[in-house]
Amino acid sequence: MSRPKELALSKVYALLEPGPVVLLATARKGRANVMTMSWHMMMEFEPPLVGCVVSGANYSFAALKATRECVIAIPAAGLARKVVAVGNCSGREVDKFAAFALTALPAGEVASPLIGDCFANLECRVHDARLVNRYNMFVLEVVKAWIDPGRKSPKTIHHHGYGRFAVDGRTISLPSRMR
Amino acid sequence: MSRPKELALSKVYALLEPGPVVLLATARKGRANVMTMSWHMMMEFEPPLVGCVVSGANYSFAALKATRECVIAIPAAGLARKVVAVGNCSGREVDKFAAFALTALPAGEVASPLIGDCFANLECRVHDARLVNRYNMFVLEVVKAWIDPGRKSPKTIHHHGYGRFAVDGRTISLPSRMR
Repeated sequence: MSRPKELALSKVYALLEPGPVVLLATARKGRANVMTMSWHMMMEFEPPLVGCVVSGANYSFAALKATRECVIAIPAAGLARKVVAVGNCSGREVDKFAAFALTALPAGEVASPLIGDCFANLECRVHDARLVNRYNMFVLEVVKAWIDPGRKSPKTIHHHGYGRFAVDGRTISLPSRMR
Repeated sequence: MSRPKELALSKVYALLEPGPVVLLATARKGRANVMTMSWHMMMEFEPPLVGCVVSGANYSFAALKATRECVIAIPAAGLARKVVAVGNCSGREVDKFAAFALTALPAGEVASPLIGDCFANLECRVHDARLVNRYNMFVLEVVKAWIDPGRKSPKTIHHHGYGRFAVDGRTISLPSRMR
């Protein structure tokens, strides 16, 4: 992996809008943890706002609620096996960064680590927690973004349930007025 | 296209969680309209709740807010050209169902039409409008779901901005405890 390069916040939406499976890293009391997540969406272009739903059964839920910080890291398809393994266990019992040999790198704005194995990392702060009680939904603001400059057009994965994923295939371009 | 077949609500999440570009159909005062959307996420398995952000600049926004009903239709990759064309114009000026020869079928529970050209159709009612004023975000409940039984493993498209899409490629399956 290359050293992460900062990405303009205006370009973040194009990473998350396609619906890739992501990893969500937190840090609480000096201990980093990571979970697998697919329930997220873009809510604003810039500053980028991201909605996500994190089950209260996840160990990460309490860390995110308490620290109001996290990193969303986007893995390419080659990391799929680790991504599923991360989702199959809990940070209550396992130090996942150690167990899965994930590379924790220091972030610039938040205590949560970047995941060096992923091609993009988004440092986030909780922007709005009003829907946490009813839906476990957090509105996150991306405050700093990083991309691996050595990875051109990485293929991401999209979860269809129970560990079945579609991997990005061919790309098509059509004249669009839609950003 | 085959006649749509009803799909169990418990299976809806596996259609939207992968982040496909969708069409959102509304009907107001007897006039149907449709827009293109990528800012959506699952929020609950069953009954299925879906969060989505619809810009106030979209003609569909007022219809969704007023009628509190819509249909989310999922197009396969073969429909990409129409999907972009739908997003490039406004229902203020164009009857999009006519202009793009989309097949409007009657829904069971809502006034919005199903789109027969899409392989899945989700009839939705607005469940929670508390975040509409601040984020243009609607929480929708899927009340009835339809799938085209003649389409096996349709490939969907994922928007990377400005009309560039990743089309679903190969599928991988890994032993997962995650639903």
